[in-house]
Amino acid sequence: MHKNIKFVLVNTTHPGNIGGVARAMKNMSLSELTLVRPKFFPHAEATARAAGADDLLSNAKVVDSLKEAISDSQLVIGTSVRERTIPLILLDAKAAAVKIVNEAKTGHKVSIVFGTENSGLSNSELQLCHYHLCIPTNSEFSSLNLAAAVLIVAYEIKAEALGNENFIFDNPALDLATNAEVELFYDHLKKVLQEINFLKQENPEQLMQRLRKIFSRIRLEKVELNILRGILTAIEKTHDKTNLS
Amino acid sequence: MHKNIKFVLVNTTHPGNIGGVARAMKNMSLSELTLVRPKFFPHAEATARAAGADDLLSNAKVVDSLKEAISDSQLVIGTSVRERTIPLILLDAKAAAVKIVNEAKTGHKVSIVFGTENSGLSNSELQLCHYHLCIPTNSEFSSLNLAAAVLIVAYEIKAEALGNENFIFDNPALDLATNAEVELFYDHLKKVLQEINFLKQENPEQLMQRLRKIFSRIRLEKVELNILRGILTAIEKTHDKTNLS
Repeated sequence: MHKNIKFVLVNTTHPGNIGGVARAMKNMSLSELTLVRPKFFPHAEATARAAGADDLLSNAKVVDSLKEAISDSQLVIGTSVRERTIPLILLDAKAAAVKIVNEAKTGHKVSIVFGTENSGLSNSELQLCHYHLCIPTNSEFSSLNLAAAVLIVAYEIKAEALGNENFIFDNPALDLATNAEVELFYDHLKKVLQEINFLKQENPEQLMQRLRKIFSRIRLEKVELNILRGILTAIEKTHDKTNLS
Repeated sequence: MHKNIKFVLVNTTHPGNIGGVARAMKNMSLSELTLVRPKFFPHAEATARAAGADDLLSNAKVVDSLKEAISDSQLVIGTSVRERTIPLILLDAKAAAVKIVNEAKTGHKVSIVFGTENSGLSNSELQLCHYHLCIPTNSEFSSLNLAAAVLIVAYEIKAEALGNENFIFDNPALDLATNAEVELFYDHLKKVLQEINFLKQENPEQLMQRLRKIFSRIRLEKVELNILRGILTAIEKTHDKTNLS
């Protein structure tokens, strides 16, 4: 699936940015990089910024025109942070990722195109695209670095691909206390609070309800419940000493 | 709303990364930056990488400890790309952004904490957090640059805030305790547990960590915290009687 998703950089000026793009792509499990007339490539700065993603650089295709770069693609998405005069259908990064992952899974080739650093994609370049991806930014400070723009798009693709695989973080399987065990804790707590004269007030049930509300939010593990019961027992021992005196 | 969301960088080694973080935050309309013991700051490299976001740098707070940085916060989220041994509830960046924007809209202060470049947050730093934010990455190439990690989180917050602009949250606005208030509770709890001889065991710190883990899951309201402090005071009174006898 990931092999069907290609990032295309047009007329990149700073080789360091190409390296930053490679790193961002690899961080998000993407590998296909095509460069349209890069100003400097290969370049030591690109390799340095790639920080271990240099396999993407050595496998990158370098071509002469955007048309050539996207010739194998069934879906072409142009990116920018600016509103454009070409009225392509506008997608935010999340909506674009849904479309990209969907298409790539059906076996279509997808190209995601990024323009030159200063001016982005030209109107004639945008006309080669099916959709226009716009990354939401601060309207007063919208100049995203090229690698940053790639990172956000790649991240959304990663998140969407994971989501489609029913990816769930493996929260550790907790050995939670049963409701009966928690009720025994409440009984114990109430008994101790009466013994230390905390529950002699006007409305003890109201206070117990508040305490239940606190602890019910925790969903205690068995081992945690045992610690709390241990504390209650320690309080009782202190109290017993008082009573003996 | 955005003023309630603070990014906290702990022990940042490379000043350029602080600048990159400032730029990423400003790109996404976020402004509140706190630095815990940065190795070099202010620094020309930070200003250079900020690329116009130097207002965030000059307004950044520099503090001596993570505890101090988050003392005003009701919600604290720790970030990393690694699975950790401390089983905090794990959120992906999107789920975390939903929670962050929700809370910030109700007026709560939120801290999002990023560890040092090489090793991330330590276990004791993570223990100060309510949730653990994990950015999905390539498991074989997961080393996100610090500014890249900040960018993704800030982008998700921006996207969520835009999506929710015309949305009314009907969650009751809870008057949650600040981190500093919760820390005072832990101090009080530890003192009382020592007095009743519950904390004389081999490894008192480990037990305190378990108790912190229990209570950090609750996110206590101020009024609830007062009830728990009241119980502690009642226990102390019982104990004092014992001592007098």
